[in-house]
Amino acid sequence: MNLYKAVLVLSIASSSVYAGQWQALPDTPPIPADNPQTLEKVELGKILFFDPRLSSTGTVSCNSCHNVMEAGDDSRPVSMGVKGQKGGRSAPTVWNSAFLSVQFWDGRAPTLEAQAKGPVTNPIEMGMKDWDTTMARLKSIPGYAPLFKAAFGEDNPMTADNAVKAIAAYERTLITSNSPFDRYVKGEKTALSSQQIKGMNAFANLGCTACHSGANFSGPTMPMGTGWFMKFPTYAGSQYESKYRLTEDQGRYEATKNPADKHMWRVPTLRNVALTAPYFHNGAVKTLDEAVRVMAKTQLNKDLSDEEVQNIVAFLNALTGNFPAQLMPRLPGISGKSVISE
Amino acid sequence: MNLYKAVLVLSIASSSVYAGQWQALPDTPPIPADNPQTLEKVELGKILFFDPRLSSTGTVSCNSCHNVMEAGDDSRPVSMGVKGQKGGRSAPTVWNSAFLSVQFWDGRAPTLEAQAKGPVTNPIEMGMKDWDTTMARLKSIPGYAPLFKAAFGEDNPMTADNAVKAIAAYERTLITSNSPFDRYVKGEKTALSSQQIKGMNAFANLGCTACHSGANFSGPTMPMGTGWFMKFPTYAGSQYESKYRLTEDQGRYEATKNPADKHMWRVPTLRNVALTAPYFHNGAVKTLDEAVRVMAKTQLNKDLSDEEVQNIVAFLNALTGNFPAQLMPRLPGISGKSVISE
Repeated sequence: MNLYKAVLVLSIASSSVYAGQWQALPDTPPIPADNPQTLEKVELGKILFFDPRLSSTGTVSCNSCHNVMEAGDDSRPVSMGVKGQKGGRSAPTVWNSAFLSVQFWDGRAPTLEAQAKGPVTNPIEMGMKDWDTTMARLKSIPGYAPLFKAAFGEDNPMTADNAVKAIAAYERTLITSNSPFDRYVKGEKTALSSQQIKGMNAFANLGCTACHSGANFSGPTMPMGTGWFMKFPTYAGSQYESKYRLTEDQGRYEATKNPADKHMWRVPTLRNVALTAPYFHNGAVKTLDEAVRVMAKTQLNKDLSDEEVQNIVAFLNALTGNFPAQLMPRLPGISGKSVISE
Repeated sequence: MNLYKAVLVLSIASSSVYAGQWQALPDTPPIPADNPQTLEKVELGKILFFDPRLSSTGTVSCNSCHNVMEAGDDSRPVSMGVKGQKGGRSAPTVWNSAFLSVQFWDGRAPTLEAQAKGPVTNPIEMGMKDWDTTMARLKSIPGYAPLFKAAFGEDNPMTADNAVKAIAAYERTLITSNSPFDRYVKGEKTALSSQQIKGMNAFANLGCTACHSGANFSGPTMPMGTGWFMKFPTYAGSQYESKYRLTEDQGRYEATKNPADKHMWRVPTLRNVALTAPYFHNGAVKTLDEAVRVMAKTQLNKDLSDEEVQNIVAFLNALTGNFPAQLMPRLPGISGKSVISE
């Protein structure tokens, strides 16, 4: 083998390693067969997503905790629902959530449709008594009937199942492509700084990619409903565990009561992670550099140097994508009446 | 004078009465000399208007109570600020508020700029400690500095005064032209139904226009800061007064402590009134037809027939304008940190 050939082979080998390990975010996420995307459904879903009348007090919409004008979360340690009540966990971002094979921190919802059913009737989130009450309220707003009809075309389309299908369809449009990382992977070699490339290599070499793999940095592509779970902390007893109360919440076990699920958590996406502070399920870690240190110690039993931390943080900043421009929906009105009384 | 001439004169007289009495909403409101509109200022103002990080908890933005995706209010009897605290009054609509010569129900703010300073530091509304704290928070979000610079071009543009100037500039773009009423006034004679025309005539003949005059149905055009106030109830002692607790709140007196201001209120716009239930300063009246009855009795000492009420309500529905489409703002992020800690 002459030198030219050797370089060529090496180059191909190196490219193919990269092609497998680093993946750009697809423009479209998996779409379930029983809920195909249509413009009408997405538009209805957007309206519902932004409508605070889906909460008992008329003050909390899906967007309140998953603010699409921000990075799809609420900047808070834990979310705040109706009447100022605090939830137990930090709101995960809605952006790119369509790439996750299960929803919620503990993965208890197999689909975005199932997820959307939860907060509306959770007494400390949106506080509606039940979905019948919710749908009765939507039915009392005349503008909703034609929107449901256009989206679902059924005789009796105003059902909770259709409402959450529409919300999920809208959420499947919330994709942030074309981050510096994505452009780099697609061949734009100047899209990342040398520090970001160092961080990317450190991210892989330290083993972060064992969990944060795939195009969404949330694990391998899996059938919807499967879930990619890891134990957190994997290495017990670090100083971070008590400092940030990492084991107070038992994670997936709280949902399943299966002892094997104690402290198991869905691996969250790292897309736009630089914009979703504070961090972890309880929002106890305020900064991204500290979150990187905590992860390295609790999951890989490694103490990182400041330089390693800064390089990885620089890389994680390269995962901030483009947030597509969106028109505000008009929320249907009701002539001369209000649906909120409390 | 022959018949032709008589009809002509009558027609001119009638037209000129109409031309004076009924006015289409202008496309642009009064603009103060010290805060000219610019695209950059309006865009910054929109971002600030939608940014919940202007509240202590990060959960309440200007838009929370003045939802531009709805009719510029919150559908609630009284508004709900941080931590679920209820305010004392119902949120007035932000749409077309630029045509009002004073702001707040009691007119205590002479301009939209002055109004915007209030809720941010009100402990039961947005709950920020003071404007210094608010501006310090905005300064900690790197994306805001270039936006203030582009809007104000000063050496030190990130001031509270500039923040509220930008918010006010955005609010001056929130105009709902081209309602059926406006189209009718401009000559499209089929824009109103015969019932709506009956209601319009009743509205004038009963005397509603004594207060709800002008293009905005909120009184005559006056210099900014002047205010068009009326006593409510004017006729004391009706059954509605106790039923709806109309005199518990003493209106402008609460702000001025001037006995002459007891139960004086700024005359609110009737633009989009069909979409801003519930009604009055305390949101105690749930429906528009009841609001019409209450007004007729308390302000004109008249008991309306059901038909009169329905005709007037039909006319008021014709004041629902076009809500111009708007792009959602992107709220500037902050890398790896959050500004909300509570």
